[in-house]
Amino acid sequence: MTQIELARQGNITDEVNVVAQDEGIEPEELARRIADGQAVITLNRVHTNIRPLGIGRGLRVKVNANLGTSRDAFDVEEEINKTQVAIEAGADTIMDLSTGGDLPAIRRKIMSVAKVPIGTVPIYEAVARAMDSASSFCEMSPDDIFEVIEEHLKGGVDFLTVHCGVNLRALACMEDEGRIMDVVSRGGALTIAWMRYHEKDNPLYTGFDRLLDLAYEYDATLSLGDGFRPGATADASDRAQIQELITLGQLQQRALKRGVQVMIEGPGHVPMDQVQANVLLQKRLCHGAPFYVLGPLVTDVAPGYDHITGAIGGALAAWAGADFLCYVTPAEHLRLPKAADVREGVIASKIAAVAADLARGNPKAKSREQAMSRCRKALDWQGMYDLAIDPETARASRSQLPSSDDDVCSMCGEFCAIKVQQESLKKT
Amino acid sequence: MTQIELARQGNITDEVNVVAQDEGIEPEELARRIADGQAVITLNRVHTNIRPLGIGRGLRVKVNANLGTSRDAFDVEEEINKTQVAIEAGADTIMDLSTGGDLPAIRRKIMSVAKVPIGTVPIYEAVARAMDSASSFCEMSPDDIFEVIEEHLKGGVDFLTVHCGVNLRALACMEDEGRIMDVVSRGGALTIAWMRYHEKDNPLYTGFDRLLDLAYEYDATLSLGDGFRPGATADASDRAQIQELITLGQLQQRALKRGVQVMIEGPGHVPMDQVQANVLLQKRLCHGAPFYVLGPLVTDVAPGYDHITGAIGGALAAWAGADFLCYVTPAEHLRLPKAADVREGVIASKIAAVAADLARGNPKAKSREQAMSRCRKALDWQGMYDLAIDPETARASRSQLPSSDDDVCSMCGEFCAIKVQQESLKKT
Repeated sequence: MTQIELARQGNITDEVNVVAQDEGIEPEELARRIADGQAVITLNRVHTNIRPLGIGRGLRVKVNANLGTSRDAFDVEEEINKTQVAIEAGADTIMDLSTGGDLPAIRRKIMSVAKVPIGTVPIYEAVARAMDSASSFCEMSPDDIFEVIEEHLKGGVDFLTVHCGVNLRALACMEDEGRIMDVVSRGGALTIAWMRYHEKDNPLYTGFDRLLDLAYEYDATLSLGDGFRPGATADASDRAQIQELITLGQLQQRALKRGVQVMIEGPGHVPMDQVQANVLLQKRLCHGAPFYVLGPLVTDVAPGYDHITGAIGGALAAWAGADFLCYVTPAEHLRLPKAADVREGVIASKIAAVAADLARGNPKAKSREQAMSRCRKALDWQGMYDLAIDPETARASRSQLPSSDDDVCSMCGEFCAIKVQQESLKKT
Repeated sequence: MTQIELARQGNITDEVNVVAQDEGIEPEELARRIADGQAVITLNRVHTNIRPLGIGRGLRVKVNANLGTSRDAFDVEEEINKTQVAIEAGADTIMDLSTGGDLPAIRRKIMSVAKVPIGTVPIYEAVARAMDSASSFCEMSPDDIFEVIEEHLKGGVDFLTVHCGVNLRALACMEDEGRIMDVVSRGGALTIAWMRYHEKDNPLYTGFDRLLDLAYEYDATLSLGDGFRPGATADASDRAQIQELITLGQLQQRALKRGVQVMIEGPGHVPMDQVQANVLLQKRLCHGAPFYVLGPLVTDVAPGYDHITGAIGGALAAWAGADFLCYVTPAEHLRLPKAADVREGVIASKIAAVAADLARGNPKAKSREQAMSRCRKALDWQGMYDLAIDPETARASRSQLPSSDDDVCSMCGEFCAIKVQQESLKKT
C-alpha cells in the first residue's frame, strides 16, 4: 500500500509521525492532507536511508537544488561537490538533472552523498541514450522512456518530473495564440520534438496509467512538469500554460484515485502582479495539490542575478500558497552553475522560504525571528550567527572590517542606535 | 518661488519638462502631481549641474545608495570610489551619511563626483561636532542643529532626512506598548537621547516652521524620517510606528501649504504580509506623498544577505505604491559596506524597482522585458547583455564556462530548449 492509501485508512505511518513532529503539527492532520492530495511525503519505498520529508499545505516551505552534468561538462566529482554544498546550505531535496557521462553511476553517487529526497527527469536520460545510439533522439520509443523511468524508480528516486501535460491540445494553444519565447522547458521541448517527429501525442500523456502503475509500485511521487511554463514575463499566464494546467489537474485526480502522490510544477517567468493568480489557479484546478515552482522570475532583465529575481518571485508565490521552491542560481540563462552559484541559489531560495513561512504565520518561523531580534538588541553576535540562515557568511563578513568598539559593528560605530539608547537610558 | 508654487500656477518649468520626458508622461500631469504633493523633483536651487529627477506617483521607481564614512573608518577616497560604483551600478540618488572625518569636505567631494540628487541627515554632523567639542553630544543646542541644516542647504543638498516625527507622543507609545528592538534609526536614537537629556520635545518637531523656511529658500525636499521604524519583524506596524506616521502626515500638510516638497520615509523590518498595508497607510495618512522605504527587510534571519531580503520587500512595497527604494547592502547589520557591497546593494534594489515597474504596468519596463525575451529567443547574446541590468556581470559569467556550441550556454548544451525547437521545426 502507498502513503495515500494508508492515510485514507487512518493509518498513521512512521513517516507521517516523523514529518508531523518535524513540522510541529498533528499526525492526524498531516495524514488527512496526504489522503486528499494536499501534502506529499516524497519517499520511494526502496530509498530507506533518508529522513522522510513532507511538502504541502500547512508545512514549512521547502527548497530544491538542481544539479547534474551537461553534455558539455561532465565532471562527476564537481557535481558531488555541488551536492554537498547544496545540502550544507540547506537544500531540502536534490534533483539530478544530468545529461552527460555515465548517468546511472552519477545518480547513484549523488544519492550516496545526499541523504534527502532525490528527484530526476527521466526523459533526459532516455534522450541522452537515444542521442548516443540513433541519428535523432526522436527515434526513441515510448518503451525506451518507460524503461528509464522504471530504472530510476528501482534505484530509489523519490520524485519524478514527468511532462505529462504536454499534449497536442496545449501545443495547439501555443501555436495559435503565439508566444515570444515558445517553450523553454527542456523536457517540454524534447517531448514536443518527439510529438512533431512522430505526429503522435506525448507517450507520458497517453500512457499515464502505465506511469501510475510504476509510481504506485515504488510509492514515488509524480511531479507533473509544466512543459509550457512561460520563459518570458510577456508569455506568463497564457492560453498554453493554463490549458496544460487544466490537464495537470485532470491527471492529478487520476493519480489520487490510483493512490499515487502528485505535485504540480509551475512557472517560470511571471510578473509580480500575476504570481498570486498563478498560485490560486493551480490550487483550484489541481485540487490543492502541492505546488512546486521554478522561481518564479519576476523580471527577464537581470541575467547574472536570477537568484534574486527568483527569490522575489519565490517569496511571493510561497506566501500565496506555493509549497516547494526550486532554486535558481546566479548562473541561470548563462552557464552551468558552479559550486559557489549553487550555494548562492540555495540561500536565496531559503530566504524566500523563510520570509514566506513568517508571512504565512508559521510559529517556528516567528519565534526564530524574535530570537534573532533579541540577540541583536543584546548585541549578542554569537547568538545572531547561530540563528542566521548562513552563519559562516555573517561571521566572516563582520570580521572583515572590525569596529574599534567590540560590541557594535563598523557600520555605525559610536552612532549605533542600540548603544545610544543604552547610554541614554543609563543617564536618565 | 518653489517647484510646488510654480506647478500650482500651472507653470511648466524646465525641470518638469525634463523629468516628464525622461518618464514618458505629460508635463502637465507631472506638474499637477507636484502641486498636490504626490511627486517631487529633488533639486536644491543652488545645485545647478545635475539632471532633475522626479520621484512619486506614476514615475519609474527610483533607487538610493547610502554612503559615507563612519567614525571608525574614514577613508575619503574609498567613499568616493563607492560613490562612483553606486552611480555606475545605476543608483538614482546618493545619500552621504558620513559621521567621521572632515564632513563638509567629504560632502563636497561626493557631490563633485555624483551628478545626481544628493541627500544627507544633518543631525549626524551636528552630533559629530558636539561629540568633538562637548562631554555629551546631547549638549548640542537646537541652533547647532539648524546651523548644520543651513550649511547643507547652502552647499546644494537636494533632500534632507529630518526626523521631525520623533516626538514625545510617539516615544510614549513605544514605551508603554514595548518593543523587542526599540529604536534602530540612528537619527531617531540620537534625537530621543537629546529629548531625554533635556526633557524637551524634538527641536525639529517644535521648530518645524523654521525648518520649512530654510527648505523653502533652497527649494529642497524634506524627507521626513521614520525614527520609530521597526528594526525587527516582530515590531512592525506597531503603535509607535503608526503614531509617528500620523504626525508625519500632519507635517506633510504644513509643508505643502508652505510650498515645500516632502517625501515620507518608511520601514524597515516588515513581514511580507504587512508590506502592502504599510504602503496603503502611508499613502492615506500622508496624502499620497512619495514613499521612500529602507528595504523593507522581510525577515530578520539573513544577515549577510540583506540585499536579498530588501529586494523582496522593496519589490513588494514598490509594487504596492512605494516610489523610492533605499538600497540595503549585504553588509547591513554587520559592518560598513565596501565597494563590492555597494554594487550588490544597488543592483538588488534596481531589480526590485524594475520588477515593480513591470507589475505597475510601466510601458518602458514592459518593452524592455519583451526586447530581452526576443534576444533570448534569437540566442542574441550581445543583445541580451545590452538589455541587462548589469551587462558586465552577465557577460563575464557566461564566458567563465563556455559551451562547446557557440550559440547556446553550458547549462543545457545540446538540450537547449530553444535549439531543440528550432531543429524540430526545421525537420517538420
